[in-house]
Amino acid sequence: MAGAAPSEEALRRALAERQAAVDAQAEAVRSLKASGAKAGVDAAVEALKALKIEAGAAARRLQASVGSGGGAAREEMRQAVVNTLERKLFYIPSFKIYRGVAGLYDYGPPGCAVKSNVLAFWRQHFVLEENMLEVDCPCVTPEVVLKASGHVEKFTDLMVKDEKTGTCYRADHLLKDFCKDKLEKDLTLSPETAAEFKRVLAVLDDLSPEELGAKIKEYGIVAPDTKNPLSAPYPFNLMFQTSIGPTGLSVGYMRPETAQGIFVNFKDLYYYNGQKLPFAAAQIGQAFRNEISPRQGLLRVREFTLAEIEHFVDPEDKSHPKFVDVADLEFLMFPRELQLSGESAKLTKLAEAVSKGTVNNETLGYFIGRVYLFLTRLGIDKCRLRFRQHLPNEMAHYAADCWDAEIECSYGWIECVGIADRSAYDLKAHSEKSGVPLVAHEKFSKPREVEKLVIVPSKKDLGLAFKGNQKMVVEALEAMSEKEAMDMKAALESKGEMNFQVCTLGKDVVITKKMVSISMEKKVEHQRVFTPSVVEPSFGIGRIIYCLFEHSFYTRPSKSEEEQLNVFRFPPIVAPIKCTVFPLVKNQEFDDAAKVLAKELTAAGISHIIDTTGISIGRRYARTDEIGVPFAVTVDSATEVTIRERDSKQQVRVGIDEVASVVKELTEGQSTWTDISFKYPSHIGPQADQE
Amino acid sequence: MAGAAPSEEALRRALAERQAAVDAQAEAVRSLKASGAKAGVDAAVEALKALKIEAGAAARRLQASVGSGGGAAREEMRQAVVNTLERKLFYIPSFKIYRGVAGLYDYGPPGCAVKSNVLAFWRQHFVLEENMLEVDCPCVTPEVVLKASGHVEKFTDLMVKDEKTGTCYRADHLLKDFCKDKLEKDLTLSPETAAEFKRVLAVLDDLSPEELGAKIKEYGIVAPDTKNPLSAPYPFNLMFQTSIGPTGLSVGYMRPETAQGIFVNFKDLYYYNGQKLPFAAAQIGQAFRNEISPRQGLLRVREFTLAEIEHFVDPEDKSHPKFVDVADLEFLMFPRELQLSGESAKLTKLAEAVSKGTVNNETLGYFIGRVYLFLTRLGIDKCRLRFRQHLPNEMAHYAADCWDAEIECSYGWIECVGIADRSAYDLKAHSEKSGVPLVAHEKFSKPREVEKLVIVPSKKDLGLAFKGNQKMVVEALEAMSEKEAMDMKAALESKGEMNFQVCTLGKDVVITKKMVSISMEKKVEHQRVFTPSVVEPSFGIGRIIYCLFEHSFYTRPSKSEEEQLNVFRFPPIVAPIKCTVFPLVKNQEFDDAAKVLAKELTAAGISHIIDTTGISIGRRYARTDEIGVPFAVTVDSATEVTIRERDSKQQVRVGIDEVASVVKELTEGQSTWTDISFKYPSHIGPQADQE
Repeated sequence: MAGAAPSEEALRRALAERQAAVDAQAEAVRSLKASGAKAGVDAAVEALKALKIEAGAAARRLQASVGSGGGAAREEMRQAVVNTLERKLFYIPSFKIYRGVAGLYDYGPPGCAVKSNVLAFWRQHFVLEENMLEVDCPCVTPEVVLKASGHVEKFTDLMVKDEKTGTCYRADHLLKDFCKDKLEKDLTLSPETAAEFKRVLAVLDDLSPEELGAKIKEYGIVAPDTKNPLSAPYPFNLMFQTSIGPTGLSVGYMRPETAQGIFVNFKDLYYYNGQKLPFAAAQIGQAFRNEISPRQGLLRVREFTLAEIEHFVDPEDKSHPKFVDVADLEFLMFPRELQLSGESAKLTKLAEAVSKGTVNNETLGYFIGRVYLFLTRLGIDKCRLRFRQHLPNEMAHYAADCWDAEIECSYGWIECVGIADRSAYDLKAHSEKSGVPLVAHEKFSKPREVEKLVIVPSKKDLGLAFKGNQKMVVEALEAMSEKEAMDMKAALESKGEMNFQVCTLGKDVVITKKMVSISMEKKVEHQRVFTPSVVEPSFGIGRIIYCLFEHSFYTRPSKSEEEQLNVFRFPPIVAPIKCTVFPLVKNQEFDDAAKVLAKELTAAGISHIIDTTGISIGRRYARTDEIGVPFAVTVDSATEVTIRERDSKQQVRVGIDEVASVVKELTEGQSTWTDISFKYPSHIGPQADQE
Repeated sequence: MAGAAPSEEALRRALAERQAAVDAQAEAVRSLKASGAKAGVDAAVEALKALKIEAGAAARRLQASVGSGGGAAREEMRQAVVNTLERKLFYIPSFKIYRGVAGLYDYGPPGCAVKSNVLAFWRQHFVLEENMLEVDCPCVTPEVVLKASGHVEKFTDLMVKDEKTGTCYRADHLLKDFCKDKLEKDLTLSPETAAEFKRVLAVLDDLSPEELGAKIKEYGIVAPDTKNPLSAPYPFNLMFQTSIGPTGLSVGYMRPETAQGIFVNFKDLYYYNGQKLPFAAAQIGQAFRNEISPRQGLLRVREFTLAEIEHFVDPEDKSHPKFVDVADLEFLMFPRELQLSGESAKLTKLAEAVSKGTVNNETLGYFIGRVYLFLTRLGIDKCRLRFRQHLPNEMAHYAADCWDAEIECSYGWIECVGIADRSAYDLKAHSEKSGVPLVAHEKFSKPREVEKLVIVPSKKDLGLAFKGNQKMVVEALEAMSEKEAMDMKAALESKGEMNFQVCTLGKDVVITKKMVSISMEKKVEHQRVFTPSVVEPSFGIGRIIYCLFEHSFYTRPSKSEEEQLNVFRFPPIVAPIKCTVFPLVKNQEFDDAAKVLAKELTAAGISHIIDTTGISIGRRYARTDEIGVPFAVTVDSATEVTIRERDSKQQVRVGIDEVASVVKELTEGQSTWTDISFKYPSHIGPQADQE
């Protein structure tokens, strides 16, 4: 299967070419439309359609190839990326000299620079573009907050222990590994047993502790390291617990997400925003999950950076004024129906997904579109990015709709961004627990007269009749719908009493006329008070970065063709170092010119490195290609230098005093390499020969 | 004493004027020198000296005024700042709806923006300018790392408990408050008792738990809230403890500083840097201290952002090639001698402090200078910034020298940056604990022949003679100096034996010739292996920001003079929002023009807000002055607009399509307001009238 890789690469290239053609044609259509030249438009649109069909076919061919296996090739590719990443200190297992801690990683210099570039672009793309209110809250969080949010009770994984050594395992992982292993390797499986294992894999996330335990017993699964028997599964809370202050009495946790810090500040932020909806708050920060047994390298870690947005919106109006800006985007979407019918993700136009109701509302759709733009501008391959809708069993009961941006890497499709319409759940939970109303107001332009149902239980009479059950009867009465209440009113008025079912008591009780007063009253209202809905895009920054590493990595032969050289094709905004400066040979004049140039680059805020080692220029290029530096400046005179672009290896001659501004334009996106290569003479010189 | 405030303000103004005059004259001297016009230089230098003397006097007058009291005025000023900061959501007590947690604060939108601007400038000023290797390590840290660093054993404060309620207090705080209170309020104190209290305050940090406890008993200090008796003081470790992984067996802590993450990575970073010294690594991140009873608002918190640099340098060469760049800086320094003799800080030239040995070495001096530039460019008032050297009792035994950048605010002089030469302590501690040598190599250009003392104890003979004491005798023999060893060699050769003192045994033993062989051997060495020294500038970002808030705050009367308006005079790089856009009146044309402008600002990466509320322009200016927005753009036509500068209130007319680039130049520091006000026509129009 190792032979599958080049063909996959070829398919990828074919797809990329077709998509580029689609983009170019779409641009042509747009400019034709803008120019008003009606004549050509129809033909251009037809051509666009044909190109899209071709691109779709290419995407399917690629998907089929990737899906059908290539496991060994993937493993090989991952090893090549990971080796380069570790050798170049993109990341380092934390506390390595003490033999490390599972699930904790450091970003070394280039990784740290990539991370800070990704976060800076996130701020530009989301916070600045949408005027979001960014906040910064502590990681240490008191228990009450996480009780309200449900994390203390429910943020758990099921764990089993080796009964002799005490080693802990995730129960679902063991069951999953067992079933997969059987399906892959046991050739004697009966069709019925195989079907049973497949069914278990499909419902794995829904199994209760008891069901999981029963399966583990039934299959005779034992501890993988020792073959000892395992305990029954029990929930383990994934939060790191600590104690706030010196008394030891005040329990705290390291936050498992940054969102709660925003919810508890809703009231202040709403006032800060002039009491207007919609608005969004955002937060970038560390979050912590004490994983039972971290696997998958950088993808499942115990501490990670989240970037979260909470967009608060009127539940009665989830339209978005800027939806038009993203409506024409087209990308791989994987709605519920396609998943359930066993099909694969389809290229879908966002406008269509929203108008058909596949995506619940415009605001959710807007953020899906913005996330797509964010990820692809970072350098995520659009053929390996899909938006997958949560299945009903994955989604919290309160959520209106939920989509994950999943990126395909050597570990499979990885959830990197979750985009959820969480309705009013979080604000209501904190309102209730804290007693502080977290609500918004809509002032009416003129007061409105409304009829309101008023139910007043007589606690005295109910208390006499129901004693300890009084509270539950009162709650049931107050919870009646308008119809139920008006029916009761009629019954009480005609018969004086009626039977009434109280679910919480599990029985009917007899309600008499004096026990409750029911009426419809007219009221003048000046405003509507409501709990806003929240649409939450939540970004796992470390996962995005890891996928970006894989998508950006490729190898190409050295000039002598004796070895394969590693390259990261990071776009300039992501690249850890924007440019390198090489004096062509060791020489005082070139060294001095290089130093002056470095000063100018610093002043322009462009990260760079000087390499004066004097080794061959080809070697020096290879070194910086390996950390994804997009531009290399070779100093071979005091007045003019060569700038070389990483992927095309093209070179141009530029006056030394223009270099800083040229590189700045390139890295800030005001110019492309094509612009620059048209503007300046191209260069084929001694340094070019060395590649 | 409340009346002291205006006079202090006046003194401050006077000092600032004098310093501006010094700066201008220094500039004049420089350009005269550059022009080669020898004639005028001497006179200009004389004038500069005179101006400096005047500035020095102004500084002393101000210091005297501030030092002599003004407590009530300070308190009042602090209240005004803090009210504005809280009202405008610069910060928010964390988890406020749950009544908060002492020592935890959120940054709200403008505070968060200021913080991210300060950090971006820190990266530009330190990481980029010096090509530092930035890393990003987790907060969760295993115990072994913090055992090696000494934090598990020594990162403690002394605590006492209310014996009835269990409430905890910092023992030194109680003693300090008691002594201060007595000195301030008890008019019956005898001179001897007063002197005793002063002595206690001076040695407070050096008292052992027993001594502290004895003083608390002697003075009859009780729990401040209940008047109950207090327990004896005992150490409380300030680290938040947690448990890593599910077994509960692996102790971890939330890091108390970011430095350890760098030290444990030294080996990899040294290789990454091509095995060359010096180099610096840097890290920005959260740190945690579980304070016993946090006070002083934002200055003493339980979670905070640190920015730390570890500059690794050859202990035999602590010169710095760029020291010349900062050598001429002159600012308030407060070396040990001045502190011990009761004098105050003095304006000192950095070059002088280093050449006289007041500052231990050039590298330490270089960073002191860079820190000075960093803080003053952020907007810290140079008259309220001093560099204070640690007294011998404050400094760790291994440190070579240590200076704190202290900023004066309403809480007094606050340590905001520590700059320490920690010698080889940290790397040695981790080498020892981990067994991984954290060392550097200096390759000799040609191999060197050296004579080395070789002592080979004969364990067999020593074992026969000394049995259980053999090990201690061996160690004593191996620890001999060259002279001792050569003396022994001579004695053994002439007499066959000699008496030898073994300290660890507390007695002399007889060593015979066959027990040890001693020789000088010639060896060829190719390199020197050594543990680098580390110079560590460590920045408390939250403290710097709080001081910046106080230093940037002022009030000025509204146009009607009926109220005082709050202003933050943040420099553009720090300002949370760079500019506001106001359509002059509600009007479709102006609104549309404002929207186009906003898009251009976004594209240029400039944070801004549009205020279309249509309230008076003066009100709108006041609103944005209060969060320190430096530039306001008023749109009163579709082609030309007015830009107004916050502090001068000056206005210029600029073409609408130039606005984004003008504001970008201003905020990135390529142009000053003076440049712009020369380039564009000034404006006195209706909006100006409203201020």
